[in-house]
Amino acid sequence: MSDGVRSRERRKADTLAILAGRGADVWVASASGDGPYLVPLSLAWIGERVVLALGGSSRTARNIVELGTARLGAGHTRDVVMIDAVLERSVPVGQAGEIGERYAAQADWDPRGAGDDYVYLVLRPDRIQAWREAHEIAGRLLMRDGVWLV
Amino acid sequence: MSDGVRSRERRKADTLAILAGRGADVWVASASGDGPYLVPLSLAWIGERVVLALGGSSRTARNIVELGTARLGAGHTRDVVMIDAVLERSVPVGQAGEIGERYAAQADWDPRGAGDDYVYLVLRPDRIQAWREAHEIAGRLLMRDGVWLV
Repeated sequence: MSDGVRSRERRKADTLAILAGRGADVWVASASGDGPYLVPLSLAWIGERVVLALGGSSRTARNIVELGTARLGAGHTRDVVMIDAVLERSVPVGQAGEIGERYAAQADWDPRGAGDDYVYLVLRPDRIQAWREAHEIAGRLLMRDGVWLV
Repeated sequence: MSDGVRSRERRKADTLAILAGRGADVWVASASGDGPYLVPLSLAWIGERVVLALGGSSRTARNIVELGTARLGAGHTRDVVMIDAVLERSVPVGQAGEIGERYAAQADWDPRGAGDDYVYLVLRPDRIQAWREAHEIAGRLLMRDGVWLV
C-alpha cells in the first residue's frame, strides 16, 4: 500500500460491504430518448445481483426495461462503487418469493405493501469499478464482462 | 413543521448551502445513444449556475455538449438536491477568467493546471427539487422553468 491506495482485493471487500450494507442506497442513472434520468433508491444485494424496488410505471423502471441497462453509483462521491448493469428480469411484488424476503431484510422498507404496480428489477453487474479519489483511478476496475478480476 | 418535514423556504436555504459548500460534489447523469452515464464530480455554484470542470473529450462532456442537458444529484441519497440543468456554455480552462478563480476557491482542486483539454461546463438549473426521505416527497419542487418558487 502506497499513499493510501487500496489493493484491488481490498476494494472488492469494501465494495461487497457497501452493497450488502443494511439500508444501502444507490444513485440510479437511466436514459431514454428524452435524455438522462437519475434518482436515489434503496438496493438489496442478492446472489451477486443488484435488486431495486420501484413503481413499474415510474420513469426509471420504464427506462431500464426499455433500454435494458442502467449505471449505478453506490457509496459516496469520494468512496465510489460504480456499476454498469444489465436488466436480468422484472418481478411483480406479488410474485417475489425469496427476493421479497431478502429485499425487506436489507432495505429499510418493504415494497410488498406499496401497491400492485411495484416491481423488483434484478440487475446483473457487467462492470464494477471502485475508487475513492483521483489517486485511486488506476486499479479501479474490479469486474469486466460480468467476471470479477480479483 | 410537522413530522420533521421542512418548509420549502427551509429547503431552499439548505439547497443553497449544499451547492455553495466548499468541496461540494455532484453525481452527474448524462446520456447518449449508448445509454446512461454517471460520474461524481466537484462543482462550483457561481451566479446561480452549476459549474463543472472536466476533460472536454470525456464521455460526460461529450454527452452534455451533444444533448444540451444533464441531471445532477447533489447532497446525499437521504438529503437530495436534484437538478435538471441546461448547458449554457463551455469555456476552455485557458479562457476562464473569473470562473477559474471562483471554481478553484470552492472546489478542492484547480483544473487550470490539468491540461488544455479541460473545460468548464456552465449549467443553468431549469428544475430543482429537494427532499430527504419519502415524507418529504410532497413539496419537493423548488424551481420550475428556471424560476424559484420560493
